Amino acid sequence: MNRLHVIEIGFQWRGLALLTAVVIGTGLVMTCAVGEEPAPGLNDTQVMIDTLWVMIAGFLVFFMNAGFALVETGFCRGKNAVNILSKNFIVFAIASLSFWGTGFALMFGNGNSLFGLTGFFLGGADNSPLTGDAYTGVYSAISWAGVPLAAKFFFQLVFAGTAATIVSGAVAERIKFQAYILFAALLVALMYPLTGHWIWGGGWLSDLMDTAFLDFAGSTVVHSVGGWAALAGVLMLGPRMGKYGPDGTTNAIPGHNMALATLGGLILWLGWYGFNPGSTMAADGAAISHIAVTTTMAAATGVVAAMFYAWIRLGTPDLSMTINGCLAGLVAVTAGCNGVSITGSVIIGLIAGVLVVEAVLTFDKLRMDDPVGALSVHLVNGIWGTLAVGLFNTELGLFYGGGIQQLVVQGIGIVAVAAFTVTASFIFWNVTKAVLGLRVTAEEEYVGLDQSEMGLEAYPVDATTPEYKIAMGG
Amino acid sequence: MNRLHVIEIGFQWRGLALLTAVVIGTGLVMTCAVGEEPAPGLNDTQVMIDTLWVMIAGFLVFFMNAGFALVETGFCRGKNAVNILSKNFIVFAIASLSFWGTGFALMFGNGNSLFGLTGFFLGGADNSPLTGDAYTGVYSAISWAGVPLAAKFFFQLVFAGTAATIVSGAVAERIKFQAYILFAALLVALMYPLTGHWIWGGGWLSDLMDTAFLDFAGSTVVHSVGGWAALAGVLMLGPRMGKYGPDGTTNAIPGHNMALATLGGLILWLGWYGFNPGSTMAADGAAISHIAVTTTMAAATGVVAAMFYAWIRLGTPDLSMTINGCLAGLVAVTAGCNGVSITGSVIIGLIAGVLVVEAVLTFDKLRMDDPVGALSVHLVNGIWGTLAVGLFNTELGLFYGGGIQQLVVQGIGIVAVAAFTVTASFIFWNVTKAVLGLRVTAEEEYVGLDQSEMGLEAYPVDATTPEYKIAMGG
Amino acid sequence: MNRLHVIEIGFQWRGLALLTAVVIGTGLVMTCAVGEEPAPGLNDTQVMIDTLWVMIAGFLVFFMNAGFALVETGFCRGKNAVNILSKNFIVFAIASLSFWGTGFALMFGNGNSLFGLTGFFLGGADNSPLTGDAYTGVYSAISWAGVPLAAKFFFQLVFAGTAATIVSGAVAERIKFQAYILFAALLVALMYPLTGHWIWGGGWLSDLMDTAFLDFAGSTVVHSVGGWAALAGVLMLGPRMGKYGPDGTTNAIPGHNMALATLGGLILWLGWYGFNPGSTMAADGAAISHIAVTTTMAAATGVVAAMFYAWIRLGTPDLSMTINGCLAGLVAVTAGCNGVSITGSVIIGLIAGVLVVEAVLTFDKLRMDDPVGALSVHLVNGIWGTLAVGLFNTELGLFYGGGIQQLVVQGIGIVAVAAFTVTASFIFWNVTKAVLGLRVTAEEEYVGLDQSEMGLEAYPVDATTPEYKIAMGG
Repeated sequence: MNRLHVIEIGFQWRGLALLTAVVIGTGLVMTCAVGEEPAPGLNDTQVMIDTLWVMIAGFLVFFMNAGFALVETGFCRGKNAVNILSKNFIVFAIASLSFWGTGFALMFGNGNSLFGLTGFFLGGADNSPLTGDAYTGVYSAISWAGVPLAAKFFFQLVFAGTAATIVSGAVAERIKFQAYILFAALLVALMYPLTGHWIWGGGWLSDLMDTAFLDFAGSTVVHSVGGWAALAGVLMLGPRMGKYGPDGTTNAIPGHNMALATLGGLILWLGWYGFNPGSTMAADGAAISHIAVTTTMAAATGVVAAMFYAWIRLGTPDLSMTINGCLAGLVAVTAGCNGVSITGSVIIGLIAGVLVVEAVLTFDKLRMDDPVGALSVHLVNGIWGTLAVGLFNTELGLFYGGGIQQLVVQGIGIVAVAAFTVTASFIFWNVTKAVLGLRVTAEEEYVGLDQSEMGLEAYPVDATTPEYKIAMGG
Repeated sequence: MNRLHVIEIGFQWRGLALLTAVVIGTGLVMTCAVGEEPAPGLNDTQVMIDTLWVMIAGFLVFFMNAGFALVETGFCRGKNAVNILSKNFIVFAIASLSFWGTGFALMFGNGNSLFGLTGFFLGGADNSPLTGDAYTGVYSAISWAGVPLAAKFFFQLVFAGTAATIVSGAVAERIKFQAYILFAALLVALMYPLTGHWIWGGGWLSDLMDTAFLDFAGSTVVHSVGGWAALAGVLMLGPRMGKYGPDGTTNAIPGHNMALATLGGLILWLGWYGFNPGSTMAADGAAISHIAVTTTMAAATGVVAAMFYAWIRLGTPDLSMTINGCLAGLVAVTAGCNGVSITGSVIIGLIAGVLVVEAVLTFDKLRMDDPVGALSVHLVNGIWGTLAVGLFNTELGLFYGGGIQQLVVQGIGIVAVAAFTVTASFIFWNVTKAVLGLRVTAEEEYVGLDQSEMGLEAYPVDATTPEYKIAMGG
Repeated sequence: MNRLHVIEIGFQWRGLALLTAVVIGTGLVMTCAVGEEPAPGLNDTQVMIDTLWVMIAGFLVFFMNAGFALVETGFCRGKNAVNILSKNFIVFAIASLSFWGTGFALMFGNGNSLFGLTGFFLGGADNSPLTGDAYTGVYSAISWAGVPLAAKFFFQLVFAGTAATIVSGAVAERIKFQAYILFAALLVALMYPLTGHWIWGGGWLSDLMDTAFLDFAGSTVVHSVGGWAALAGVLMLGPRMGKYGPDGTTNAIPGHNMALATLGGLILWLGWYGFNPGSTMAADGAAISHIAVTTTMAAATGVVAAMFYAWIRLGTPDLSMTINGCLAGLVAVTAGCNGVSITGSVIIGLIAGVLVVEAVLTFDKLRMDDPVGALSVHLVNGIWGTLAVGLFNTELGLFYGGGIQQLVVQGIGIVAVAAFTVTASFIFWNVTKAVLGLRVTAEEEYVGLDQSEMGLEAYPVDATTPEYKIAMGG
């Protein structure tokens, strides 16, 4: 590495280090001033059990970071593996700082119908686990959950981390490492919490046309938000070199390790048992078990549909399509998992499995290069799942005699979230581009990001140093 | 791929797609007619805690799918890795549909002493979590568990999936992909639930000679049933090409990735903490903690015994034997984990560890080719564990003054389950053979199933397309 | 393998087999004599919930075995992968037997201020889950936890296993397989429980200068004890061949699989949610959620600090440093996680992340070869975390107006544990050396332990036997 390169790196990390320092410094001031001790609360059995459940579900959702890391790494090339693993490892760390600093406050802090304005660095007053009228504090929007503030923060944090990691896959194999980190920090600090506030934080989408936009565990709040941000990134970055031929052809760039990808898919499936049933944020046995079953059936039918549909459409039971079919079913049932019947979940999953295959083919036709299929999984099926609530919810859905109203509200929410997230994403991607640049050079892409950016190979050949030979008398 | 091949694939998937369509279609009709809303139940603390425990234990058992996938993939060759991963990924999806459609009803639905007859597609009446005399519904056999029906279904489903996945390893590297899928669907839909009904569903083995056949968490119900079905498959398929030389020699065909296999073994061990302690289906702290300890000690002594015994017998502390020793100890303690002492579990595990090594060597002598040792682990130690209840159960076991009766009942159960499962398996394997064929051709086996069947390599070399060179100005 | 080698192996395993036989045999006698039935206890809701939590947390800690296995395997060379995987697989089995036999009794059995003297093989009287004055039994030191004895044993066992596995990484790639097993058995049976007794077992460090040495979840009890034992091993063994050049240079010996290492790091992070919050040993929602957040923030800042600091210091955002930064933050917050504020945990993690990078570089300067950075993570940050309690504890810490006293007590504890553990470790390493030898030969190290010791390759090329060619007509 020559001196200029060192200086350049020096320049670039300084921006991020500065950001980190500002975030933490502010945190020090805020929390020293306000104090962060959990308010004395009820210590009764219900609180205890609810808290256990929220925490355990949160641990499962945390583990999804491993799932995302493995799916993305497995679906991409070995020359970029360290880069991808690093992105996925640091993204949750960055998300933790960002969500602590501003994300949680913007999303759940008291404010207006567009964003929260209080409670940064978890420094606001709060007497959780008291609920309802007994609650006093600045996080009213989540005061329905009878668990300590720290439990609410932890559970919401692992969700925020998920949204950030969705972006990673779509922009893989050509984005600058630092650019992804900065964008992920901005997404969790400023963008994800805003639309989240609209829907889960008591904002304008939580009461619209006499009903609420329904998104139980986040098909829109988490998955399609991640998807829209990824879409903007894909458009900004352009396709990987060699993905689309000059004559309109699409070249398959197969992932380097299907075992890792499959393990990742199963870990994500496991994690979803925290994601969906955990969104009760209470130990409601009937709801939890019902949600676990609808989640299972949608995943199962997503798998079956994607595999057989790929078999027909492409001639082989493509394993990468099968894995994405599973994830598609899971994303699609996320919004409605609590309110659809088992049969509803089966249909939602079947459609998700077909959709994901068609979406992968369509994005390629549009020359929008998404190495892992993140757009097809999280964006397309995030939208599908959100609409499906308006169709299959057993109380309000069109197919269950609920009329068209819920479907309309779902549509309005989807469009509003899309408009905001795409706009904000383009702004943030452009900020990132201006500060750090977005895309590695053609040479760096060609040799792989591990060599050009990370200084480490994922799978080096075993080292044998000259000293060995000396030691062996050779 | 030529046109004929496309047509042939087209023909083959149609059978499976049809099956799926019939299953789901019937589900639609059934559940629309009967409704599937959980009955209003008790919402008290005990139900809440019991349900949490059952669900969390079920999540751990679900994760065993990842363990089985990695052990089998790691123990087999890289040229078949995508095939094995795909089998393990789809098997739980197929099991979910099959068990929803017919499995749960045949196993736990009210019926006669041979099989259940009611409650298909979870569509039967049920007022769970009410129990005992307060229970009314069609799933009386499992009405002892005070949790919602959805929780019972989920927990039993992940067990059913385990039985199906056991077969996968024994028939690996030469079975047709579609044939395995069809057999797994039949196993979970029709075969596993029947013997399950005999033992756990109130059937004839649950009350025999004034006692019950004891199989707490399924050494027989799950493991040896999977093992017997696998045995029939091994006999139908014959050994892999080149495994046994014409001169009576056995050729080692080493697995391609011991890191994946080891990780898989540890995930299975983790999952067993759901499998065994979870089979309480109630938050009984004394039972759960005792079972976790007996499970741990049997796994530990299985590891130690298999490693040292292999070291003596084979000259090296063979890691694949060590992993299988762990699984052997776990399978063996599964039947008795709740009723044996810690010392009992230690002895059960020690014997299991020796048994698994001898069994692997014996099956090879018999030229029965089982690539991952599934028969030695699940069948042999499923039998051993079931017999061990008759010896070590601290109330009824022979070594604890309980006389010979329990041991006799255990023996009767083993023989009856074996007779039925082997017979049914041969029928189903033959049905599968007739519909789809069982074994790939010698050419397909030689090049590997990933190339011949799956259209995807597990570990391709990083792609470099011509467009790269153009982009690089080359 | 020639005959002499067989005899030699035969000689060596006999020692271990004998040890095992003695352990188990004694167990049989003890437990038959005393009985091991759990005492009849309270069956109320609190016990039930507490027990569930302790067990689930214990399962998460158990899973850390997989994390350690993957980090160590990934960070080392492929030629030693089977050896490392085997060490990590068997160590928990060995720990289970050792801790059952003597460890738990020495640590928590009634005795004096230096060690417990009663309750070997879990054979002591005990009426858990009764607590406080209602408790009668021989494990008084842990009678504060209102859960069954089996739950206490299980949770403490998974901690003991962790201490043993820490050693594995530091001595990797040159220690004899048997030597590690014997040392690990001695560590868990005799060494770890003694210092554990001082701190958690009611010994002299639990009441010193009118306060207690504070180590909530084991920065010292588990991590630095493992680290000191590893340090002695590193000094006894010397560096790997070729690590340090004759001219004072240090040669990087890169690990062979960063994907496995990263997955391992994330599994460890997950497991820590059992390790730290679980150390409440009670379903205290406020404590559990607070601890999960401080644990998260320390891990997150450890990641960020290590990555950016490595970037400055070494020129690249080194992934192995990043993973170790995460573990460093986790180790450092372990002692104080329950008693520091979120801001405190942020600072603890930031410092840990910098410390781990400097420590890795320093140990290399000292020519102390630690292939995975275990000393830098567990020893250095175990010490840092223990001192940090004296600084950041919100009641007793220096920075919170608590004066210097707690910091002094923390220092005394660190020095005492270090003195004992280093001394005992040298004794045990020397015993091991005398019985089995410590280090493989230069030839064995050169070809790799998998070939020389384990008789198995981790990643063999797919086998194609001559029979294939015959079958193919070739």
